[in-house]
Amino acid sequence: MARAVGVDIGGTKMLAVALDDHGEVVASGKVPTPLDAEVLLRDLVLLVANVAGAGVQTLGVGVPGMVDSAGVLRRSPHLPGLEEVSLQKELSARLHGVGVRVANDASCAGWAEHTRGAASGADDMVMVTLGTGIGGGIVAAGRLVEGANGYAGEIGHMVVDPHGPPCPCGRQGCWERFASGSGLGRLGREWAIAGRAPAVVALAGGDPEAVRGEHVTVAAAAGDGPAQDLMAELAWWLALGLGNLANALDPALIVIGGGLVRAGAVLMEPARRAFVEMVEGHNTRPGLMLEAAALGEQAGAIGAALLGCS
Amino acid sequence: MARAVGVDIGGTKMLAVALDDHGEVVASGKVPTPLDAEVLLRDLVLLVANVAGAGVQTLGVGVPGMVDSAGVLRRSPHLPGLEEVSLQKELSARLHGVGVRVANDASCAGWAEHTRGAASGADDMVMVTLGTGIGGGIVAAGRLVEGANGYAGEIGHMVVDPHGPPCPCGRQGCWERFASGSGLGRLGREWAIAGRAPAVVALAGGDPEAVRGEHVTVAAAAGDGPAQDLMAELAWWLALGLGNLANALDPALIVIGGGLVRAGAVLMEPARRAFVEMVEGHNTRPGLMLEAAALGEQAGAIGAALLGCS
Repeated sequence: MARAVGVDIGGTKMLAVALDDHGEVVASGKVPTPLDAEVLLRDLVLLVANVAGAGVQTLGVGVPGMVDSAGVLRRSPHLPGLEEVSLQKELSARLHGVGVRVANDASCAGWAEHTRGAASGADDMVMVTLGTGIGGGIVAAGRLVEGANGYAGEIGHMVVDPHGPPCPCGRQGCWERFASGSGLGRLGREWAIAGRAPAVVALAGGDPEAVRGEHVTVAAAAGDGPAQDLMAELAWWLALGLGNLANALDPALIVIGGGLVRAGAVLMEPARRAFVEMVEGHNTRPGLMLEAAALGEQAGAIGAALLGCS
Repeated sequence: MARAVGVDIGGTKMLAVALDDHGEVVASGKVPTPLDAEVLLRDLVLLVANVAGAGVQTLGVGVPGMVDSAGVLRRSPHLPGLEEVSLQKELSARLHGVGVRVANDASCAGWAEHTRGAASGADDMVMVTLGTGIGGGIVAAGRLVEGANGYAGEIGHMVVDPHGPPCPCGRQGCWERFASGSGLGRLGREWAIAGRAPAVVALAGGDPEAVRGEHVTVAAAAGDGPAQDLMAELAWWLALGLGNLANALDPALIVIGGGLVRAGAVLMEPARRAFVEMVEGHNTRPGLMLEAAALGEQAGAIGAALLGCS
C-alpha cells in the first residue's frame, strides 16, 4: 500500500507519485495547475487520493519559489496566486492525520537525484534545474541544505554580469537571464534579429521576435551550425555559474535537470568542456563532472515524497 | 593545562593559540612564516611547544589554499613552497601522539566565528575574509561545509563579471578582483591615474601607480570624498557577491573578516545598504545582515584549534 505521496506543483501541471515502503513509484498522476489557491488545494487533495487511496501517511509537496520553514510560500513568480499561502497548514487541515511537508521544487528534485538518481552515492552534490528560470538544490555531507529560513538554493538570481540584461527580480545579469530556457530564447532572438540564425527563424514561423528556446534546441539537434553555436554560448554561461557553485561548495558532482536538459549532447558536451576551465584546480577534484538528471519529470515529486516521509 | 592548539599559517606570519578545557585562549604566539617547507614545519613545531608546553593533545592548522581531506595543501598562491606538502602527515610525524587536522584558513575562521564569535547561535552562516584575496567558510545546520574533497569555500573565484579584469587563476572578473584588498588597490589606481583621487595619491607619495588599498581606506576614514566614493564602489561589488552567496545558502547572517574589515563603517555601511538590494526577497529573511568579525586576527587560529579537537 502506498504511504508516502509527493506532489510537484508546476506552473502548468501538478504531478503526483505514490511510493511503496521500498521507495519505489507505484502510482502517478497529473492534472492542470489551477490559478486560484482554493481550487488548487482542492484539486491537489483529489490528486493525492487518486494516486494513493486512503492509505497515505505522509505528503511532500514541491513548489517553485521560496518556501519558509513553516511551509508558507513567500515568493513565487510562477505561482503568484499561491504567494503568502500557508500550504502546509492548509493541506494539513484538509488531510487529517497526514504528515505534510512543503519545500522548494528544485530542492526536492535534488534530494531525489541524491537519494536514488544520478547522484546516488554522492554525499556532496548540487542539482541545477534549467526551466523558464534556474532552480537549485544543495546536498552537503548527505543532508539537504535548507538555510536559515528554508530558502537555500535560489541560485538563478546569482548575478554573473552586472551589465547584463534586466531581470524581473529588479537586478541585472542574473544567471537565469543567460542559462535557462528563457535565457536561450533571449539569446536566440538576439541572433535571429541580427540575421545570424536563419534556420531558427524558419522554425519560429519566419518571425525573429517569435524565437523561443525550443526552436534553438530543435535546430541544433538537427545539425544547424548557428543553432549549435547558440547552444555553445548558452553552455558557456551555464558552465560559468556551475563553476561558481563548484568553487563555493566543492560537490562530488553536479546534476543538470529541467526541460532544457532534454536538448542532450548539444548542451551537455560544450557545457562539460567549458566547466573544466571554470573550476579552481579542476585537476585536483577527481571525478567532478556534470551529469544529466536520471529521474526526469518525476524527480520533484519523488523528492517531495522522500522529504515528506523522512 | 592547554590541550588544544591552533595555528593559522599566513603569507607573512604564523599565529598560534592554546585553548583551555573551556575553549578560552590561555596563550598565543606569533613568528614569521618561512618560505621553505622544512623550515616552516620546524618553526611551527617550536611555536606549538612555546604556546602549549608538553601538554598538547590536538593541533589544528589553518592554511590559505585548497586543503584536501587527507591534509595535503593542493593549491596555494600565497604559500607556493607548501604546495603538494602533506601537512597533516608531516606534522603528525613530528608531534608524536598529537591529533593533527589541517583545513583552509577561512573555513577555520568561519568555524570560530560560528562557535564563539559574531555568528554564535546561528546554525547557518557564511564567513567572508577580505584580505589580498577573498576566502570563505560556510556553516549549514551547525556543521562546517567541507565539500567532497575538503575545498568548499573557494568563493573568491566566483566570476561576477566575465568582462572584468584578468585574475591570476586564468579567468576574468573573479569576485576577489573587485572586493578584496587588492581589488581596492586596483580600483584606487584606476581612479588615481584618471585624476579622480588626489588625496589618495598624496598618501601614496604622489605616485598614482603606487596606490594601495590602505591609502584608500585611510583617506576615506579621514573624510575624503573621492576615497569614500571608492569605498562605496568596493562595497557595491562586495554586496553583489554576498547577495549571490545569500541567495544560494540562505544564511542567518554573514560575517565579514580579514584585514579590510578594519576600514570599519566606511566599508560596512555602504555594503549593508547595497546588500539589501542584492538578496532575493530580503524582506522575507528576518535578521539577515552583515556583521564584522568579532575574533580579529586570532579567528583562524582559534577555529583551527576548535576543529582540531572536535
